[in-house]
Amino acid sequence: MRLSLLKWKSLKEIPKDETAEGTILLIRAGFIEKVGAGIYDYLPFGLMVLNKISEIIREEMKKIGGQEILMPSLHPLSYWEKTGRDKDFDALFKLKSRFKNQYALGPTHEEIVVPLAKRYISSYKDLPLYLFQIQTKFRDEPRPKAGILRAKEFLMKDLYSFHQDEKDLANYYEKVKKTYLKIFKNLKINVILTEASGGTFSKFSHEFQVPSKNGEDLILYCPKCHFSRNKEIASNLTKCPNCGSNLEKIKSIEVANIFQLKNKYSRPFNLIYKDKNGKEKEVLMGCYGIGISRILGTLAEIYHDDKGLIWPEIVSPYKYHLIFIQSSDSRINEKIKKSAEKIYNFLLKNNKEVVYDDRQISTGEKFMDADLIGAPYRIVVSEKTLKQNSLEIKKRNSKSLTLLKLDKCAKLVS
Amino acid sequence: MRLSLLKWKSLKEIPKDETAEGTILLIRAGFIEKVGAGIYDYLPFGLMVLNKISEIIREEMKKIGGQEILMPSLHPLSYWEKTGRDKDFDALFKLKSRFKNQYALGPTHEEIVVPLAKRYISSYKDLPLYLFQIQTKFRDEPRPKAGILRAKEFLMKDLYSFHQDEKDLANYYEKVKKTYLKIFKNLKINVILTEASGGTFSKFSHEFQVPSKNGEDLILYCPKCHFSRNKEIASNLTKCPNCGSNLEKIKSIEVANIFQLKNKYSRPFNLIYKDKNGKEKEVLMGCYGIGISRILGTLAEIYHDDKGLIWPEIVSPYKYHLIFIQSSDSRINEKIKKSAEKIYNFLLKNNKEVVYDDRQISTGEKFMDADLIGAPYRIVVSEKTLKQNSLEIKKRNSKSLTLLKLDKCAKLVS
Repeated sequence: MRLSLLKWKSLKEIPKDETAEGTILLIRAGFIEKVGAGIYDYLPFGLMVLNKISEIIREEMKKIGGQEILMPSLHPLSYWEKTGRDKDFDALFKLKSRFKNQYALGPTHEEIVVPLAKRYISSYKDLPLYLFQIQTKFRDEPRPKAGILRAKEFLMKDLYSFHQDEKDLANYYEKVKKTYLKIFKNLKINVILTEASGGTFSKFSHEFQVPSKNGEDLILYCPKCHFSRNKEIASNLTKCPNCGSNLEKIKSIEVANIFQLKNKYSRPFNLIYKDKNGKEKEVLMGCYGIGISRILGTLAEIYHDDKGLIWPEIVSPYKYHLIFIQSSDSRINEKIKKSAEKIYNFLLKNNKEVVYDDRQISTGEKFMDADLIGAPYRIVVSEKTLKQNSLEIKKRNSKSLTLLKLDKCAKLVS
Repeated sequence: MRLSLLKWKSLKEIPKDETAEGTILLIRAGFIEKVGAGIYDYLPFGLMVLNKISEIIREEMKKIGGQEILMPSLHPLSYWEKTGRDKDFDALFKLKSRFKNQYALGPTHEEIVVPLAKRYISSYKDLPLYLFQIQTKFRDEPRPKAGILRAKEFLMKDLYSFHQDEKDLANYYEKVKKTYLKIFKNLKINVILTEASGGTFSKFSHEFQVPSKNGEDLILYCPKCHFSRNKEIASNLTKCPNCGSNLEKIKSIEVANIFQLKNKYSRPFNLIYKDKNGKEKEVLMGCYGIGISRILGTLAEIYHDDKGLIWPEIVSPYKYHLIFIQSSDSRINEKIKKSAEKIYNFLLKNNKEVVYDDRQISTGEKFMDADLIGAPYRIVVSEKTLKQNSLEIKKRNSKSLTLLKLDKCAKLVS
C-alpha cells in the first residue's frame, strides 16, 4: 500500500489522557484512534493486525472442533436475571428500548449460548459440542487508563464447550490450555500460566498472564518451577507451594482465561441431555476467552523502543517498509523513484505485504515514520545503493544494514 | 463438513412470532436462531453466507479506493448532541454507564467518522478520502416482525467519502452507484434503483429496492422506462414523470442506500480543509450503506420454494450436498459408504465446499434436509448409482437428475 493513498499521517504529539506506552504508540502510528475514554477506532493498520491475530486463533479453534457462530451484543435482560448476573456482574451495561424492553450489552455470552445449545442438545449423541465466536464485547470498566488493554468495547474470541461428564470436560480443558499456549507461542508472546479464582465464574480456572509494567494484574510467580497464582487468591503466600522458592510479585496483563463452569450455567437454564439409559443429566460446560484487541495492545506494550513499534512478522500489517531517498540531481532522482516503483510492484506481484512511502516529505521524516510503524524489514533505495546496484535492508530490531544486489531481489519473496 | 460433527438439526416446527418466510426457513435450516424480538444468533451456515456476502462487498469497496477501518458501537452521546440527532433519530438506543457517562449505540457512524476524518484532513492534498467498515449496527426498530429483514442488531457495510467540491462528490456518488449495481448483479439480486428522500439524511439519495411481498417499503415503479421513486416522497404520483406510463405500486426490501450528505455533518464538526490558495473550505461528504444481514434475509425471501432454501452458488455455504442411501444388504452398504467417503475426501482435497450428510437417519429425512439447506448441487451415492459406476447429481432448482461416471468425478472440481 502507498502511504500517499492512505493519506496516512503520524502524530507527533502524545495523546492526552493516555498513559500506557503501547496505546500511545498505536495512536501516534495511526493504528488506532481514541473516540472517548476506553473507546477506540481501529484504523487500517490496526484492523490488519486484529485480523491477523483473529485468523491465527480461528484456525486453532477449528482444529479442536470449534464451530464458528456469531451471537448478538443485545441480550434480553431476562436471560441475565435467570443467572442473577444482572445484579452480580458489576461492569454490565444495561439499557431500555423505547418500547420498554430491557437489554444487557454482552460482556460475555454464557446467558446466550446456553439457551442456544438447547437447540442442539437433547441426547448424549449431541455431545460434546464446541461453539465459538469472534465478537465485540462491552464492559463498563472503571479504569479506562490502561488504554486498549482495558477498553469499554473490545474484540474477544469466546469458546464454549458442552460435555457429558467431568472427565470429558477436564480432558477438553487441558486440550484448550495446550492450544492457547501454542497460539501465544505463535504470536511471540511469553505467557505465564496462572492459577485464578475466575471471579464471578468458577474455581477451576487459569489465566494467561504477560509480564508488563502497564499490566493491571498482580501475580505471584516462582522463577524456578514456574508456579504462578493470581495475587487475588494467593492471600499471604510468599514461598512457592511446589518447590519452596521465594515468589516474585509481577505486574502483568491477562490476555486469556479458561474456566471449568461445570453446571453453573446449564442448571439455571435447565440444559440437560438423556444418557445411554435414557436418564436425564445436566450438561457440563467450559468457557475459554482470548482478548484479541487486548493482544494488539499487549504486543505494542512488549514490542517497542523509544522510536516506535516493533512488530513480530506474523502479525505485522506489512513485512516490508519501502523508502526512497531523494537526490538533489533530478535525473538521478528519476532513476531512484523508478527503481523503488519497480521493487514495490515486484513485491506486490509476489503477494508480499509492503507499505511504500511515496510521499513528498523529508528523508528524516520517512525514516522516523518507518521506525514508528514498525514493520519487520525496512528497504531503502538511494543514490548510494543504486551506485552499488543494490538496495539496503535493515531489520527493525537490529542496527546492522545489509546490501542486497538488485538482481538478487528474488530473495525478498522466497 | 460432516453434519454429524456439526450436530446439525433441522427444525420441523415453524418458529412462533416469525412471519417472514425467508427468516422462518433460515431458522428451520439452522442458519440463524432467534434470541428475542429482532435479535438473532448466526449459526455456522448463516455466518458462512454473511462472510461470503461481506467479502464480495469488501473487494468492491477496495477497488474504489475504500480503506477498511472499524469504528466502535459505543458512541459518546455528546457527538450525537452536536448534530441534534440525539433527539431526531427515533431508533437511537441510548444508555448510561455506572460512572454517569452517556452513550448512544451506533445505528450509523457519521457522528464518529467525521471527528475521525479530522485526524486525516487538513489540506486539499488529503482529499478525497474514502473510509468504510463492516460492522454491527443497533436500531430500536418498532416492527421486528420482518425477521432479519429489520432486526434491532444487524451487520452493515458503511462507506463515507470526503471531497473538495460538489463535482468530485457527484462523480464518486455515480461510481459507488455503479459499484453497488455490480455487487447486486454478482449476488444474483435484481434491484430497482429508486429515488429516495433519505429520511433524516439528505435530498440527494437513492435506494436499492428488491421487490418482495415481505418487503416493508413501497415504491412506485415504471415497468417501461424503469423510473422508480419511494412512495414516501412520491405523494400522489400515478404516471411516470419520464415516459407517462402508469406506475406500479410494489412492495420491496431496501437492501442499500446512498446519500450525498454534502456539508450536513462536516459543518457541525467544523471539518474543513485549506484549498490551493490557503483558503479554508468545508469538506463535502457522501455516505453509502449496504445491509449485509438484510441481504442474507432477502436472498432467503427471493430464493426458496416450499421445500426450503435455494442458494445462488456465489453465497451458498456449500456448493455440494453429499448423501448416501443405505442398502438393506450390509456388504453393499459398506461399499456405498466407502464410495461416499471417497467422493467427500476428493472434493475436500480439491478445495470444494461440501456438506456431507453422514448421519444415521432415514433417507427421506436426508433428502428433505438437503432441500431445506439448499446447496446448489445434491450428490447421491446409492446401490443403484454404484451399479452404473456413477453418482447422481441434481441441481436444487431443477427436477432433472444426471448420472456422472465415477471416473469422471474430476468434472466436479474443474
